[in-house]
Amino acid sequence: MSRPVALLITLLALSSHNAADAGMRNIILIIGDGFDDQHVTMGRNYLAGMSGKLRVDDLPFRASVQIETVTGSGTPSYVADSANTATSLATGTITSIGRIATDIDDHDVTTIGERAIAAGFKVGLVTTSSLTDATPASFLTHVSARSCEGPEEVLGSTYYGIPQPACLADARDNDGPGSIIEQLVSSGASVLLGGGRKFMNQTTIDNETVSAMAARYRFRIVTTAGELTSADLAQPLIGVFSEETLAVRWQGTDGRTAEATETGWLHNLSDYLGDTKEPDVMDCEPNPEYGDTPSLALMTETALEQLSSDNDQGFFLMIESASIDKQSHKRDPCGSIGEIAQLEEALDLAQTFANKHPDTLIIVTADHAQAAQILPEPTLYSRYPIPIYSPGLTARINTPEGGLMRINYATNNGFSEEHTGANVPLFANEVGARRLRSFLRQREVHDAMSLFLLGPAAPPQNTPPASR
Amino acid sequence: MSRPVALLITLLALSSHNAADAGMRNIILIIGDGFDDQHVTMGRNYLAGMSGKLRVDDLPFRASVQIETVTGSGTPSYVADSANTATSLATGTITSIGRIATDIDDHDVTTIGERAIAAGFKVGLVTTSSLTDATPASFLTHVSARSCEGPEEVLGSTYYGIPQPACLADARDNDGPGSIIEQLVSSGASVLLGGGRKFMNQTTIDNETVSAMAARYRFRIVTTAGELTSADLAQPLIGVFSEETLAVRWQGTDGRTAEATETGWLHNLSDYLGDTKEPDVMDCEPNPEYGDTPSLALMTETALEQLSSDNDQGFFLMIESASIDKQSHKRDPCGSIGEIAQLEEALDLAQTFANKHPDTLIIVTADHAQAAQILPEPTLYSRYPIPIYSPGLTARINTPEGGLMRINYATNNGFSEEHTGANVPLFANEVGARRLRSFLRQREVHDAMSLFLLGPAAPPQNTPPASR
Repeated sequence: MSRPVALLITLLALSSHNAADAGMRNIILIIGDGFDDQHVTMGRNYLAGMSGKLRVDDLPFRASVQIETVTGSGTPSYVADSANTATSLATGTITSIGRIATDIDDHDVTTIGERAIAAGFKVGLVTTSSLTDATPASFLTHVSARSCEGPEEVLGSTYYGIPQPACLADARDNDGPGSIIEQLVSSGASVLLGGGRKFMNQTTIDNETVSAMAARYRFRIVTTAGELTSADLAQPLIGVFSEETLAVRWQGTDGRTAEATETGWLHNLSDYLGDTKEPDVMDCEPNPEYGDTPSLALMTETALEQLSSDNDQGFFLMIESASIDKQSHKRDPCGSIGEIAQLEEALDLAQTFANKHPDTLIIVTADHAQAAQILPEPTLYSRYPIPIYSPGLTARINTPEGGLMRINYATNNGFSEEHTGANVPLFANEVGARRLRSFLRQREVHDAMSLFLLGPAAPPQNTPPASR
Repeated sequence: MSRPVALLITLLALSSHNAADAGMRNIILIIGDGFDDQHVTMGRNYLAGMSGKLRVDDLPFRASVQIETVTGSGTPSYVADSANTATSLATGTITSIGRIATDIDDHDVTTIGERAIAAGFKVGLVTTSSLTDATPASFLTHVSARSCEGPEEVLGSTYYGIPQPACLADARDNDGPGSIIEQLVSSGASVLLGGGRKFMNQTTIDNETVSAMAARYRFRIVTTAGELTSADLAQPLIGVFSEETLAVRWQGTDGRTAEATETGWLHNLSDYLGDTKEPDVMDCEPNPEYGDTPSLALMTETALEQLSSDNDQGFFLMIESASIDKQSHKRDPCGSIGEIAQLEEALDLAQTFANKHPDTLIIVTADHAQAAQILPEPTLYSRYPIPIYSPGLTARINTPEGGLMRINYATNNGFSEEHTGANVPLFANEVGARRLRSFLRQREVHDAMSLFLLGPAAPPQNTPPASR
């Protein structure tokens, strides 16, 4: 071959490659469940040091996202759950707590995941929770209550003896689309990685397991990190690596979480009398139950490989670090911090991918704020001659840089903390910086993603509620 | 005069005017004390509605600011107070709690206010606290402890019977620069508006009142809103409109603040037994003690007029809405929300000014996070058959849009809530958007302001601490 001809062929190949790459448009949406500013700062202080930076801190764009929630009758409500917030992110619709891509009148509202699939994009969901949990579910399924995870639960269930809502109209028994797991396996998704094996083992109305149903939909199913690493990515992939939520990476010393300040009997008579004893200091250490749980990074890496292979058009990938929130409910700050580290690793992979595929929008955001607060250690009032302590539960954590960080949980007296109502952070790469504003309502994050991936031609799918 | 000559004169006049205006470079730094994301959202929900926008939300730029605090021995500390944070903003130096523009070795660190005055800019401080409180003090004075507000306190004082730190080395009795109020009146500031009359009435080592001392420094002194409105602005102006902190605009119904959930004696034996009663709902209403207190807007308007008159070079103006924080310490959400409304009004005036003077940098930020949290109303766990309530103090507020917003305070058992450690929001106008990054340490806010106002030629005034 003459050199000019070789050069021409090279140029054509490059140009064809560039054209394909320019055509590939991708969204990587990373949701830190409960990853509000207290948690971002907890993570920074522990993982990077007070004067250090997280990977999210180096993203060029930062916005505030206002969460909108309504009661069942449509009046404003000021604290959300992961179901109504994921519904806002996935559909642009404001709804009530517990709803999965349904509005307050129980109409299904189309999700960006469904529209992406219909337009020829690949779609993936990766989470450290069960695949059927509220956040992933809201991107591809529609039920009236988040508890309707499997063919059994859709007909009604209990949780610690407390009855949970059924979704009878959604059940396949009543000609509905089925439980969350059934809708997921028939959604047309390309990759679904997380927990939730127990729902895959349930039996559908067709007398087959959900796993068998998934196989009919061409899914390869893996259940261990080893199988995930060696999985053939030529076909759609489901990975379920635990019965429900995946084990978290870290815990406090010997599994300790936040604890009450001990008060002597005399102190119980008066704040001016008797002794109190604050919880002992703890370290963050590996959770022995983590075992060979695949990391969020490994799941992210596999999903990116599956979604980008044999794909000139692009994809929508939602990645959730779910247990920042779940461990905050359990008053386990080391648990939350380890899951922030997992989120950072997933972001690292997303950025590496975006460096090679410039038309990739990366957004990192939280769905709602959580209970944990960083409190002074010692109290600001240590000069006062009475013991000052929180009425809630306290963890005092040694940080690698030699500080002592006090985390407090005091939103209720029950077994699980409450969410809180602050607006949440949103971080984005340059592609996002050009398309987002410094203040957004959560539904507007959906609108911006939809415009980026599907273009202005995409008709409005959902009727705006009155409050929009 | 011939037409060409008239045109030439007109052009010269325009060019001279433009040059003067282009030469006038201004910073308006608005500090919402304790104005963290929970408080921003509380304010938005009440003042603009869940789906509405505050004025800060419409600013084009938003960043996160990480707070850095050290202990007296220089190790990282994860929760700040208004003294060490205002010192970071004013000087770029990380220091320990309670210090006013001094480092942990008690060396004075030069402030942006002092450097601005030395470079020929006018400087103003406006606050709803005492002028001697930590935030304003840190921009123009240097003492080892924030309690050293007047000539009496610099030698030692008590607060509710608790001894407060003295600043003996700073006292004029020991050839120091004097208390905060003495340093303020000799600082060369052009306008100082807020509270703190009691410190003006104290007697200095020269056997004169601080007011007399201020008059020697050419200050006109006003003490009422009426005097403020009619004050001659040709000379420097001090306004002190209350003994210490100014009265706040709003309060809860009949002065109510957050309250404990009442528990019956049987409930005290077990969470499963007996009754509980949550605090009654309240409204926000005008505070009857507010009277004719000048608004933050009136003080801002007067300061802008004083600073911009007869001034071709420009100014540095710090405006603080101090009682967002002070009312959060007192568990008074309506009090905090009213002061957020005051901040918004001051921002409105700042924006109007900047529209006429384009080289004006507007920054709105908080100094540190605070205790208040927006909690679910009702609890997320209302399905459970036991009463779920916070162990802290709760206020349930009717919002104008017909919602019910629950605010909780549970950081300690004492008379005043703790600060918290989250990074805080920063909002800026277009001038700021061109000069700031999406993630900043608090000292870097100082560095950016200094570069904007004083230029890169300004030598580094302060030795970076080891942790920088």
